[in-house]
Amino acid sequence: MDKIACELAQPWTVSEWLNTPTPLSLESLRGSVIVLHAFQMLCPGCVSHALPQARAVHAAFPHDKVRVIGLHTVFEHHEAMTPVALRAFVYEYRLRFPIGVDQASPDGNPIPVTMRAYDFEGTPSLVVIDRNGGIRLRHFGQMDDLRLGAMIGQLLAEPDD
Amino acid sequence: MDKIACELAQPWTVSEWLNTPTPLSLESLRGSVIVLHAFQMLCPGCVSHALPQARAVHAAFPHDKVRVIGLHTVFEHHEAMTPVALRAFVYEYRLRFPIGVDQASPDGNPIPVTMRAYDFEGTPSLVVIDRNGGIRLRHFGQMDDLRLGAMIGQLLAEPDD
Amino acid sequence: MDKIACELAQPWTVSEWLNTPTPLSLESLRGSVIVLHAFQMLCPGCVSHALPQARAVHAAFPHDKVRVIGLHTVFEHHEAMTPVALRAFVYEYRLRFPIGVDQASPDGNPIPVTMRAYDFEGTPSLVVIDRNGGIRLRHFGQMDDLRLGAMIGQLLAEPDD
Amino acid sequence: MDKIACELAQPWTVSEWLNTPTPLSLESLRGSVIVLHAFQMLCPGCVSHALPQARAVHAAFPHDKVRVIGLHTVFEHHEAMTPVALRAFVYEYRLRFPIGVDQASPDGNPIPVTMRAYDFEGTPSLVVIDRNGGIRLRHFGQMDDLRLGAMIGQLLAEPDD
Repeated sequence: MDKIACELAQPWTVSEWLNTPTPLSLESLRGSVIVLHAFQMLCPGCVSHALPQARAVHAAFPHDKVRVIGLHTVFEHHEAMTPVALRAFVYEYRLRFPIGVDQASPDGNPIPVTMRAYDFEGTPSLVVIDRNGGIRLRHFGQMDDLRLGAMIGQLLAEPDD
Repeated sequence: MDKIACELAQPWTVSEWLNTPTPLSLESLRGSVIVLHAFQMLCPGCVSHALPQARAVHAAFPHDKVRVIGLHTVFEHHEAMTPVALRAFVYEYRLRFPIGVDQASPDGNPIPVTMRAYDFEGTPSLVVIDRNGGIRLRHFGQMDDLRLGAMIGQLLAEPDD
Repeated sequence: MDKIACELAQPWTVSEWLNTPTPLSLESLRGSVIVLHAFQMLCPGCVSHALPQARAVHAAFPHDKVRVIGLHTVFEHHEAMTPVALRAFVYEYRLRFPIGVDQASPDGNPIPVTMRAYDFEGTPSLVVIDRNGGIRLRHFGQMDDLRLGAMIGQLLAEPDD
Repeated sequence: MDKIACELAQPWTVSEWLNTPTPLSLESLRGSVIVLHAFQMLCPGCVSHALPQARAVHAAFPHDKVRVIGLHTVFEHHEAMTPVALRAFVYEYRLRFPIGVDQASPDGNPIPVTMRAYDFEGTPSLVVIDRNGGIRLRHFGQMDDLRLGAMIGQLLAEPDD
């Protein structure tokens, strides 16, 4: 199979992690398919659709093969969506996959660092990264389970480099 | 029609109001059917079911006949569900009916004052109050639209005292 | 309470009944609130919404107070929606309320007799009839549970004549 | 990649086809991933879940790569689920993928020929067949979109023999 040319995923910049004993870098997950869900805890579409989908992906695939990573990209209502509020939210919604808090921008820009690096339009945003760190799918808004499943299945079936 | 003996609704104790220019007392709403939704902004069942139902009731009936009142009864995660967070939540979820913040208990009890007065088991809790201030329905958890509609229709059809 | 002027419901003309040992006339149900659901077994909106709603009404209210009546008003695909097919459908979908087969028109008109008398636009159609036989609600298409519940509650609360 | 040992799909035996100008054999579809949905038009789980899923698969993937085939496996209520009734059903539910009527058994067995060959437990049943004719997934009942998508994506990514 020929190699597919694709954009390499940017490293993420996280100020604190939930649901993982150690920080997780993109580099450390190399070899797994990564499903990155950027969300905000007070974003209705995230709560009704994207986070349940992330939870379903986390439940459906072996964790050594498919890594689900949440990224709390707060770009509005910063005073409401604090890390302490996020912890209560994650507890109440029983989210079990690792979630990183996107690092606030040092320059007063309301958009946090990783969200800027990935150039997300808003939340929810979804990125699927292959085992070599290439971005294979980017989606803003509600994503269909069938299409997301197909992308994951395809990446799992690709031969290792 | 004979009068029905029923428990009188307790006054509510609210530390601040959203979506209303003036505070609303139970007394001031006498003559309307009142649908009181007690909720917490980080309670999943409130977000997925009870608050959409409250919004639907608010949309379905004339506002001078049926008054929908939200009551933010924070009894856990107090540091996350602050008034500033509630305002962001109400904005994002486009809730338009009046919402009162249940007064924190002065004695350090985590359960707020009105929640104690009504003896709610948790959130979401629903109370339907007739035009004379009598409690006609109490429900903890998910409530069926058909049964809630029937109770409202019945109370609207009852002759005035 | 003043009497409300409203259209009297037409008698229905039924060629056979399911789920009732004896034929049911409008006259024989006088004194009950009647929820009449006109449907076709191959109408997608009937199957996904109107019939589940009819079943929910049948489950939610006492059967001596609220009578749910299905009416199979076949106006298309007559060769597919025969009484024998309807019986299989009613069995598989576990419908328990009485269902009448609307009498085929004698003059070759594809629209059956009761559907013409009620001037239904199509299926699903819903009619709510008060305890005196007056039509209080007519609706073509998907009906909201909250509004239907309110109408039923109101009619149950009205004093008898 | 090593070859996977798997059961070869049985040919199907179809008495008539809908939505295709020519009969489709398993052999003629070799080279495509096949999603075979066995259903009955009066099976509630087929109508509410499996057929909408088949329609979504048909819409989500290129038709030369993924072939969705419906199979009407009538094993009960034969007098209700006739080919003429199936045509009305397919028209009303706007199903566009090819659908074969499973051949009635010649020996009076109520279970049709292909259903017996595949040993289906009931409806809905789903079979996913790879490009070499091997059965890779069998499922009776409601199937998750994410898992079905993953299987399809995996089979699409496998190198040709």
